[in-house]
Amino acid sequence: MAAGPTPTAPVAASRWQRWLPSVPLLDWGRRYDRSTFGSDLVAALIVTVMLIPQSLAYALLAGLPAEVGLYASVAPLLLYAVLGSSRVLAVGPVAVVSLMTAAAIGQLGQHAAPGTPAYWASAITLAFLSGAMLLAMGLMRLGFLANFLSHPVISGFISASGLLITASQIKTLMGVKAEGHNLIDLLGALIQQLPNTNTLTLVIGVAATAFLFWVRKGLKPLLLRLGLSARIADVIAKTGPVAAIAVTTLLAWALDWQGQGVRLVGAIPQGLPPLTAPIWDLALWRELAMPALLISVVGFVESVSVGQTLAAKRRQRIEPDQELVALGAANLSAAFSGGFPVTGGFARSVVNFDAGAQTPAAGVYTAIGITLASLMLTPALYYLPQATLAATIVVAVMSLVDLDILRRTWSYSKADFAAVAATLLATLGAGVENGLVVGVGVSLALHLLRTSRPHIAEVGLVAGTEHFRNVHRHAVRTHASLISLRVDESLYFANARTLEDRVNAAVAAQPELRHVVLQCSAINDIDASALESLETIEQRLRDAGVSLHLSEVKGPVMDRLQGTDFLKHLGGQVFLTHYQAIETLTPDVL
Amino acid sequence: MAAGPTPTAPVAASRWQRWLPSVPLLDWGRRYDRSTFGSDLVAALIVTVMLIPQSLAYALLAGLPAEVGLYASVAPLLLYAVLGSSRVLAVGPVAVVSLMTAAAIGQLGQHAAPGTPAYWASAITLAFLSGAMLLAMGLMRLGFLANFLSHPVISGFISASGLLITASQIKTLMGVKAEGHNLIDLLGALIQQLPNTNTLTLVIGVAATAFLFWVRKGLKPLLLRLGLSARIADVIAKTGPVAAIAVTTLLAWALDWQGQGVRLVGAIPQGLPPLTAPIWDLALWRELAMPALLISVVGFVESVSVGQTLAAKRRQRIEPDQELVALGAANLSAAFSGGFPVTGGFARSVVNFDAGAQTPAAGVYTAIGITLASLMLTPALYYLPQATLAATIVVAVMSLVDLDILRRTWSYSKADFAAVAATLLATLGAGVENGLVVGVGVSLALHLLRTSRPHIAEVGLVAGTEHFRNVHRHAVRTHASLISLRVDESLYFANARTLEDRVNAAVAAQPELRHVVLQCSAINDIDASALESLETIEQRLRDAGVSLHLSEVKGPVMDRLQGTDFLKHLGGQVFLTHYQAIETLTPDVL
Repeated sequence: MAAGPTPTAPVAASRWQRWLPSVPLLDWGRRYDRSTFGSDLVAALIVTVMLIPQSLAYALLAGLPAEVGLYASVAPLLLYAVLGSSRVLAVGPVAVVSLMTAAAIGQLGQHAAPGTPAYWASAITLAFLSGAMLLAMGLMRLGFLANFLSHPVISGFISASGLLITASQIKTLMGVKAEGHNLIDLLGALIQQLPNTNTLTLVIGVAATAFLFWVRKGLKPLLLRLGLSARIADVIAKTGPVAAIAVTTLLAWALDWQGQGVRLVGAIPQGLPPLTAPIWDLALWRELAMPALLISVVGFVESVSVGQTLAAKRRQRIEPDQELVALGAANLSAAFSGGFPVTGGFARSVVNFDAGAQTPAAGVYTAIGITLASLMLTPALYYLPQATLAATIVVAVMSLVDLDILRRTWSYSKADFAAVAATLLATLGAGVENGLVVGVGVSLALHLLRTSRPHIAEVGLVAGTEHFRNVHRHAVRTHASLISLRVDESLYFANARTLEDRVNAAVAAQPELRHVVLQCSAINDIDASALESLETIEQRLRDAGVSLHLSEVKGPVMDRLQGTDFLKHLGGQVFLTHYQAIETLTPDVL
Repeated sequence: MAAGPTPTAPVAASRWQRWLPSVPLLDWGRRYDRSTFGSDLVAALIVTVMLIPQSLAYALLAGLPAEVGLYASVAPLLLYAVLGSSRVLAVGPVAVVSLMTAAAIGQLGQHAAPGTPAYWASAITLAFLSGAMLLAMGLMRLGFLANFLSHPVISGFISASGLLITASQIKTLMGVKAEGHNLIDLLGALIQQLPNTNTLTLVIGVAATAFLFWVRKGLKPLLLRLGLSARIADVIAKTGPVAAIAVTTLLAWALDWQGQGVRLVGAIPQGLPPLTAPIWDLALWRELAMPALLISVVGFVESVSVGQTLAAKRRQRIEPDQELVALGAANLSAAFSGGFPVTGGFARSVVNFDAGAQTPAAGVYTAIGITLASLMLTPALYYLPQATLAATIVVAVMSLVDLDILRRTWSYSKADFAAVAATLLATLGAGVENGLVVGVGVSLALHLLRTSRPHIAEVGLVAGTEHFRNVHRHAVRTHASLISLRVDESLYFANARTLEDRVNAAVAAQPELRHVVLQCSAINDIDASALESLETIEQRLRDAGVSLHLSEVKGPVMDRLQGTDFLKHLGGQVFLTHYQAIETLTPDVL
């Protein structure tokens, strides 16, 4: 996407190397020393503590057994550490991708019901397909495709996903079962289940949610007032979920909450991540292809934007195409170690960065930490109430919901507002996949619509100057035999006929017209359709006894026009400046 | 699409009138006099003679009985005369739309086989749906949507359709039956049928084709040499098909060609167009909806481009939205009078224009002429060989095939070449509908791709001037603490991240950097995504101790930026000219 040697992306020595993915490990690994090791280890410890509950929670959100979250947090971290171009990105299960996983497998229907081995195997297959797609896109250097996910679409999508996730967690906070992949289905199911609410579960859930919101908003200022440094206060505040988990787990054990109908995490198998493989079934792959593609793109966009933000703080860079390769490898490794789709998470990467991680080695240490936890710590999680995990999810995702974007885009641009609103409503009303597809469609359509109706101003000379301005806004000099049009957009197929029409209108309205001069200063490109339109305009003007002239044509545009029939047959002239055109054609205006 | 009073589109007097379609008849009808009547009558006579064989031929091409072509040439002409904004457009069956009709109904499969009443009823329904869509688009003023059919797509599509039509007529020239809606199927079927060729039919077909090609290329020069005026020579040359038809019909009668296996047109029912109605079947409508939409758009584009070209020759205008209304009404009338989808044809409109038609009344007289012909002339057409009609089609459509467009677009722009080639190959290989859809998709994707990778130049000061040029092309002055970037494209979601990446690269590569100045002279618009990117860039630069500045921001863009957080928090300044920026920030460069 851009040239030039940079610290994290050394220029390849030979030609063929440019076509292979690079291995950033070889770069930073060579300079690894004891001080970096210390920083990385501290960061890894903090991230491990934060990741354990998060991994369990997101696995449940995806409709999978809790331990799958731990499995998905080991191999992907290792692979990313070898191949990733960000120094601090932490890869693993994240909220939005987990929601999309649940939606994708939910669509498969009866033969992959939540809780069944078929459901887990489908999640593994989804991770495999997503990984293969990311890897392929990276090797083909297609990272730029993610640019077509506009900011309004991403904002609307993430906010709607946050609301959907929150709605999906309410059932766990109430202690009931309710399914649905859009807001209407979810709320309907919840209302039906209202009479079955388990009061104790609701009390635990609401208390945990309130505590975690307070930790997020109130604890840090308190710690600062107590004299702690901002960074330490921040890190302590981020470990709030661990406290909530420890306390509710202890209480559940001591007070026998299970006997009172509170759903616990229960027995988590101890051990290393299992060796697994995707289902080799083309019919299933076809069904999962579109969800896998959407998960890949959303995961990539989330990961790259986090990575770029953090890299820039240390004047580093990340390579989008290299990120595709690394995320692809991470997802493939998840598929072969019992996991589900993963990507670079926002919260965990920021914690990793703030805790002082210097290199991807911190990810390796985190992976070791999580392996140790899944070998030894899982029995302690037996009494962890699921409502506590739901509370951690709700608090985490509510920070993603930003409905103020509606107000901001409304005041900036109605088209962007429409794209946000369409994505938000489609995601809430028709689920994550439809939401994304609608959003991308609407934003592309609105962009094309906008450029298809370019601003074309009739300009005239400002007396005593060489400047030309819009005749409708300024007192300017014009001449009945000449019209000057300035097009404020590159000319391409969607707007070429608008120009034809504008010129036709001018000719029909102005019987004395002899010259049309197009001021081309804002035209960055003229495609073949627009060239054809210019030929048509020229031909029609000629038939009507009018000459077409151009002025202020940009260098690259002029290069292209050279040698075309249009320029060969042009009756009028090409002027360097618009003033010269007026000077030559209607000197009496001056 | 454009404002201002014009001869053919009077400005509506009151507000509500703007929302109603206008009736151009009220405008030209008021000024109708005897001299106009004479011109229109002569033109109508010539067009009628030309239209009779053409209507029969295109009905056969669409897989319909020959008389349906006559039916489709009466009511649509009348409706267009009342509502159309072009003075000379001749509406009726045309080659490409007939081919698309055959493809659309062919997809319905067994329950609408060619020759059955169900097939005809489906064609009537297709005309109804297409008419309803055109009318709705016209009332909603959606004429601009046709602009998304780029010139390369139209060229590729029309050429491929010409080749497909030619291939489909070879079977009639050979006297065999062969079906297929793409080139591969068609050629395969023809090769299989090779042994069944009727030699006499082939001789008639080849002779007629050769004669008609000679009429087109050789007759006009001959007539000119004989001293006829260019216009009369042209009109005589256009009546060539009538001669071919008269001669072969007479020979078929005299020599009993039917007894030798030559397929004739046969008995055509005499009488007025019948009163018909579409099939009211939602399932069928759903199947025909997409073909109807594509037929509407293609027909509209063909009609409007012919109409505009002819109108411009007399300094008249046509209103695209009014044309939608008129074509919609024409197709609806076709559906209720036994016809099939129609549009404004190129050849017939040019003949009408050249023959001196002044107003749409010529269309009314043509409709009367065709009605008289279908009442009285049809018995005379019994002996007309189908191979002669096929020859007229082949000669007409081969003039649409323009493969030189491949060479022209290749030399002008590889992206446009790709769009032509994709449309051409997809149409030939997968039929008209897939061809159009692929073409539009490819051309939109290529356009987005092009604007998503904008030209971003690092510029420096040309010594002794106030001009800034690309550092890679010119010897210019720069400073290690400042980088000047000029973006040659409007900033929107697809290219916003490219700019982020470019700035990140510059910062990572230039450790002494303190200022980034964006020269915004070519930026016509900044959407919400790009604004977000600018905020991100500003924030990252600030974190790295670098200031972001803007220069030469256009008025409308600046209006929008006013009041945004970006401008409020911008650490740097907004300079009127780029020179002022350099003067202020790094005066030692000057």
